[in-house]
Formats: sequence, structure tokens, C-alpha cells
Amino acid sequence: MQHYAEWIVVDWGTSNLRVWMMGADGKPFASDRSDKGMAGLTQDGFEPALLSLIDPYLNPDHVTPVICAGMVGAREGWREAAYVATPCAPPDARAAVAVQAHDPRIAVHILPGVKQMAAPDVMRGEETQIAGVLHSQPEFDGILCLPGTHTKWVHISAGEIVSFQTCMTGEIFALLASQSVLRHSVTTEEWDEDSFIDGVTQAMDSPQSFASRLFGLRAGGLLQGTSAGAARARLSGLLVGLELAGTRPYWLGRHVAILGADSVAAHYRCALAAQGVQAETLDNAGLTLAGLTSAYRSLKGALV
Amino acid sequence: MQHYAEWIVVDWGTSNLRVWMMGADGKPFASDRSDKGMAGLTQDGFEPALLSLIDPYLNPDHVTPVICAGMVGAREGWREAAYVATPCAPPDARAAVAVQAHDPRIAVHILPGVKQMAAPDVMRGEETQIAGVLHSQPEFDGILCLPGTHTKWVHISAGEIVSFQTCMTGEIFALLASQSVLRHSVTTEEWDEDSFIDGVTQAMDSPQSFASRLFGLRAGGLLQGTSAGAARARLSGLLVGLELAGTRPYWLGRHVAILGADSVAAHYRCALAAQGVQAETLDNAGLTLAGLTSAYRSLKGALV
Repeated sequence: MQHYAEWIVVDWGTSNLRVWMMGADGKPFASDRSDKGMAGLTQDGFEPALLSLIDPYLNPDHVTPVICAGMVGAREGWREAAYVATPCAPPDARAAVAVQAHDPRIAVHILPGVKQMAAPDVMRGEETQIAGVLHSQPEFDGILCLPGTHTKWVHISAGEIVSFQTCMTGEIFALLASQSVLRHSVTTEEWDEDSFIDGVTQAMDSPQSFASRLFGLRAGGLLQGTSAGAARARLSGLLVGLELAGTRPYWLGRHVAILGADSVAAHYRCALAAQGVQAETLDNAGLTLAGLTSAYRSLKGALV
Repeated sequence: MQHYAEWIVVDWGTSNLRVWMMGADGKPFASDRSDKGMAGLTQDGFEPALLSLIDPYLNPDHVTPVICAGMVGAREGWREAAYVATPCAPPDARAAVAVQAHDPRIAVHILPGVKQMAAPDVMRGEETQIAGVLHSQPEFDGILCLPGTHTKWVHISAGEIVSFQTCMTGEIFALLASQSVLRHSVTTEEWDEDSFIDGVTQAMDSPQSFASRLFGLRAGGLLQGTSAGAARARLSGLLVGLELAGTRPYWLGRHVAILGADSVAAHYRCALAAQGVQAETLDNAGLTLAGLTSAYRSLKGALV
């Protein structure tokens, strides 16, 4: 007998699409992913991209709810789901936008992102991970740091996103390391921890020297034979240090939890430790699924 | 009768190759250029790239001196011309490296760049423009600002390069404006002067907020409908402001001359004026030629 999904959870970002097929017990019994992210799709490409992953699990005799989060709800996405403004709880399905799919077997709902009017800032996707944290730790009070292409610092209190700040640290690192003149100086995946912390300290001590210290990495390689591993780690340190200098109100004297068990999260933990902040690390595997599940419960409530 | 060059001047950068054919009167009577820059050439590609521009002007009965400056002398260039260390006058031909060409009609000399050991920094090509300035203003005492992909701030005194500082401002701007998420927010060549100066002021007041202010440009476009022209100018302003914050010892209370009559030079002049510094603008057309000519005179002297 074919195993049909009771409902389906979708994490649809800029570059990737992930789906989980949920059983009657509230747990995923299958999952799949593809590289059909929002950025590579035109308006009429979203439904086929989704169906290509979920089709075998759709019950022909029922309408299966599909709940989506991420950039799929951006202006350039499948359908725009307008941002909810801070302070707010992570948006649940009552704030979702319904999409009229061509396939009668699915009822698609897209969750909105979160905006902050002053200083202007936005998130799409991270709010689901935050919902996942609050699902397992409803009393969480402090700062969540979500490192990545666009690192988010999020102040959480009383179950709400109070404020947040986005830093383009990861994206700037990737551009400089792969496309600027510095690419000649960081040709390695090696890592020198001391150089990283040196870079963090330098950038925090004199953030205004950032642009000239960058070129110093190139000159240091040419004149002093600085190793590529040291240069790569120092480049990252300069960027993370500049970020920490700018986000001081978020982490100074606060309870900080970093989402992610990967090397980038480890670098942030190490940089914060050098400032005397012992950050907790939360494993982010499953957080998006937990957040979307909790959003779905509210949908069921709303539909009853 | 064919007009042969007495000698030939070559400005050979990363992306471009420019040549001037010089007459007995010490003036150029012809010039040419191609996109055969250093970055696109392998070791054995330099001589053919040069000959393809200068061949018709070579006297078959004489050896024509060819004097080159720029990235052609880098480690990855035709032949490495080791840096001269500051403090120093712009290197003249006595410091040049001779290259053994296959063609017997040319005697090629490559001028070295300039290095600074602390803080580590290097230049290749700009020193020829500096020589050009000193040729026409031997008494110049103050700061030269050479805006570009890698902006140089150079302290000149008593005919020497005392110290200098390189900022990757132009390269970072180009990467962010064309390849980061900000490319969606700066889709224009328009320019809003007030936003530029706002960006300069913000970055100088709080350089540590640079990484988060960048993402604010994207969020501002999404939430407040900030125009692309305003966002583009503010992005440039944030970068130039961060640079000015880091180069304060160079321009504060100094005589500053900006090389370049283009729009980038105008932005720097405007940003400095907002700090109360009235910078002079020097037309950089002809400066490289003047610098290389003055270097050639020393070669003639050295060869006598």
C-alpha cells in the first residue's frame, strides 16, 4: 500500500528546496531535496519543482496541506507573503498566504518573513528556525546568533522576536576570498586559529582600518611570505571582528546561543570566547522542521 | 619615409597595455593600446603582445629602448622587478630590470614597484604617476590620493615616497554592487549626492556598523522603497567613509591632491570637503607618460 503524506513541510530558500513528508504520528517518514531554489525559478516554475519531489506521496482522494517557509515568499518568489513586523512571535500559519496551485491534490500555504522598521532589516527562513528553538525551549530569553551568508543576531524575549540585526559577513568573505585580489593569498582550506583571533582583535580595536588591513593580507603574502592558511583565517577574523564590533549591544553581557554545529558556528563561538562570552551551541539540525511543524499545528487550528 | 621611434614607453597593467612611440624631440608621435594585460598572458605571451603594437615603429638598424612600468614586473609578469623599499624616490631606470627579448630590435627594461615593510604594502604602476607629479611639481609636499580599484594614499616629501596605504574600496564596491544581494538594490548608474555624504558620515561616525549598514541598504529598498540611485550612492559613501576613517592620519590637516578628473575622484573630493579638507585635483592624463619619460632620462644617463 502506498504511503501518503498527511501533510508536507517545505523549506524553500534562495538556492535549495527541501521537503519532508509527514505521517499521521506527526513525524516525517520521508524527505527529499533539490537545487531548485527561488533564485533559479520563474513564476511558473515553482509548482513543477515542488511536485517533482512530492508527487509520489500525494493522496489522489484528499487535498494535502503543504506549508512552506523561506525565500519562496519573497517578492520574486512563488507568491509574496508580506512581512510581519517586530516585536512578534515567529509567524505561524494563521499569517500564511494561500497559493492557488494548479494541481487539485495540494493546498499550499506560504509563511511570511519578519521585518524590523528601525533600523530597517528583514529575515525569511530564519524565523522558522527561531520557532523551532522556541518550540523546544519556550522560556528562551537572550540572543540567538545564526551564522551564515547573512548572519542574524536576534533578541528573543517572552516568546517574541524583539529586534534583530543582519550582517553580510559570510557573503563578503566569499566574494573577497574567491573573486578579489585576495584570492591569490588565501588559496587553501587550511585554518590558523591564532591568525583568526588576531584578526578579530585587530578589527574590534580599530574597525576603521578594515579596508587597509584587507590589502595588508595581500602585501603580507608578497613581502613576508604569510601562509595562505594564516591569511584566510585572518581575513575571516577581520570580518567577524568587524561584525562583533558592530553587534556589541547584542552579545555584551547577554546569554548567547549560536545555531549551528558547523565550522562557521565554531569560529563565532571562539571569537565570542575571546571577548569573555561563553556562547551555547544549539544543533540546528531539525530546527526548521520543528518550527514548520509548530506552524502547521496553528494552521490545523485555524482551519478547524 | 617610415617614422621610427627613438624609444618606446609602456604602461602595462593587470588588464591593459598602453604604448607611446617617442620621437627625437622627446614627445610621443604615436600611441596604441590593447587589452593584453598581465592577467591574461602567460610567460611567453608578453613579447608578442608588445610587438603587435610597436613593430611598425622599430628601426631595423638600431636597438630601440623600451621602458615598461606596472604589473608586467610582478612575480606573475614578464619578469619580476623586485620592489624598492620606502622611503624612496619613485624608481627610475637605474633600478630597472633588463629583459632578454627574442627580437634583436628591442632592449626591454622593466621598472620595479615600491614596497613598504611596516605596515606591509605594495604598489606597481602608481609610482610612475607619482614620478609624473614630481616631474612637474618637484617641490610637492603633502598627500597624493590615487582613487581606483585599490586606492592609494601616499605621503610625499622632499621628492620621496615617505609612506603609503592601500584601501580595497573600489574593488569591494564593484563586488558588492554587481555580485552580492545588494545588486538588486543598486540597479542604476544614477547618483544621489546627499545619500553619498550621509553614507560617508555614518561610516566615519561608526565604522564598526559597516557590515550591518550594508544589509540595511537591501532592507531599506524592500521596506522603505529607497531608490536605487540613493542606495548606490550610499553604498559608495559607506565604503569611502570607512576608508576616510582609516586614513585620517593621511588627510587630516594635510595638503591633499587627488589624481584623476573622473567621477570617482570627484566623489573623493566631495567626501573630503565634508571633513573640511579642500583637496586639489590633478589631471592624471599624461602623468604616467611624464613619469616614464623622466625614468627614461635616467636610463640614458645610466647607459652613457
